[in-house]
Amino acid sequence: MHVLNFVNGVDLDGLTGTIGAVTADPALARFQFRARNEWIDGGHSRTTIQKFYGAGQEDATRTEPFILETDEPPILLGENRAPNAGEHLLHALASCVTGTMVYHAAARGIALDGLETTIEGDLDVQGFLGLDPDIRPGFESIRVTVTVFGDFDDDRLAELGALAAYSPIRDTVSNPVPVTVDVLRA
Amino acid sequence: MHVLNFVNGVDLDGLTGTIGAVTADPALARFQFRARNEWIDGGHSRTTIQKFYGAGQEDATRTEPFILETDEPPILLGENRAPNAGEHLLHALASCVTGTMVYHAAARGIALDGLETTIEGDLDVQGFLGLDPDIRPGFESIRVTVTVFGDFDDDRLAELGALAAYSPIRDTVSNPVPVTVDVLRA
Repeated sequence: MHVLNFVNGVDLDGLTGTIGAVTADPALARFQFRARNEWIDGGHSRTTIQKFYGAGQEDATRTEPFILETDEPPILLGENRAPNAGEHLLHALASCVTGTMVYHAAARGIALDGLETTIEGDLDVQGFLGLDPDIRPGFESIRVTVTVFGDFDDDRLAELGALAAYSPIRDTVSNPVPVTVDVLRA
Repeated sequence: MHVLNFVNGVDLDGLTGTIGAVTADPALARFQFRARNEWIDGGHSRTTIQKFYGAGQEDATRTEPFILETDEPPILLGENRAPNAGEHLLHALASCVTGTMVYHAAARGIALDGLETTIEGDLDVQGFLGLDPDIRPGFESIRVTVTVFGDFDDDRLAELGALAAYSPIRDTVSNPVPVTVDVLRA
């Protein structure tokens, strides 16, 4: 009989298997994620996400694509049909910190009763508008607060706090990433 | 009679008004965006987005919150209930490049027949798993390709290509952003 071994909803046997497979063949750790965004009108656009590459093959588990939309609020000349791109980035970062802490806590055998991540980011639209070259277009600072539910002493809380360092999106936002932009005619 | 002045679906009178207001009072350019993410189980979590601060006040135009979800595919121990955090980041970046090019083209009087932005990002999950300290958890590189529809000569295409520099999320991902993470007990 195989007894399933889950902590925080994470399949620990699966996680151990992944670590073993990647240790034996590091090429399996390479992933490529993708998205395609189509402009609709003004600040409104729609993104389709389905395929990705990882663990040595093209993934084929998604029978339907995910659809996400972006728009702006009226003050930024949109119609509130969806969050704006800055809010989508904050969602990506917050949910990544959540998931990273849950997975890494599970790997350490730390069961969580709950977890909530709030996030806020400041920016100055003078950068976007090109009004002042000394003001960056992007976020100037981002603050993440993770609230963990459970009976943890100070040492355990500090151990949990260190886990956010493994978050891929925290690293992506905190540190430089080479981004190329090519513009082509249809 | 007021004749509406739209290019690419962008209200140019509104954009001119925004630039004028911000030039007169730069404090109006300060925005703060926010999100709250709640862990559900394993890699599955849900984000609520509604309020933000901008143009000198708390926004009150959204009567209902936006809800976004994150999950992982099976190979990353999830159940494909939603895109993962890396894909959400690519959506944020692609839709921001789209919107930035559309708004800045409109400000220059360049009408677009269409625009599509594809994006791909590479990462190595050895970083996330903590298996090799020399491998970063985040994206190692991201490539964005923007296809513009319309009758543009080479000079105009180069002018459009330069507009992605104003994208807030391109700047956020390309360049370092200070991100603090505090972990608290409930």
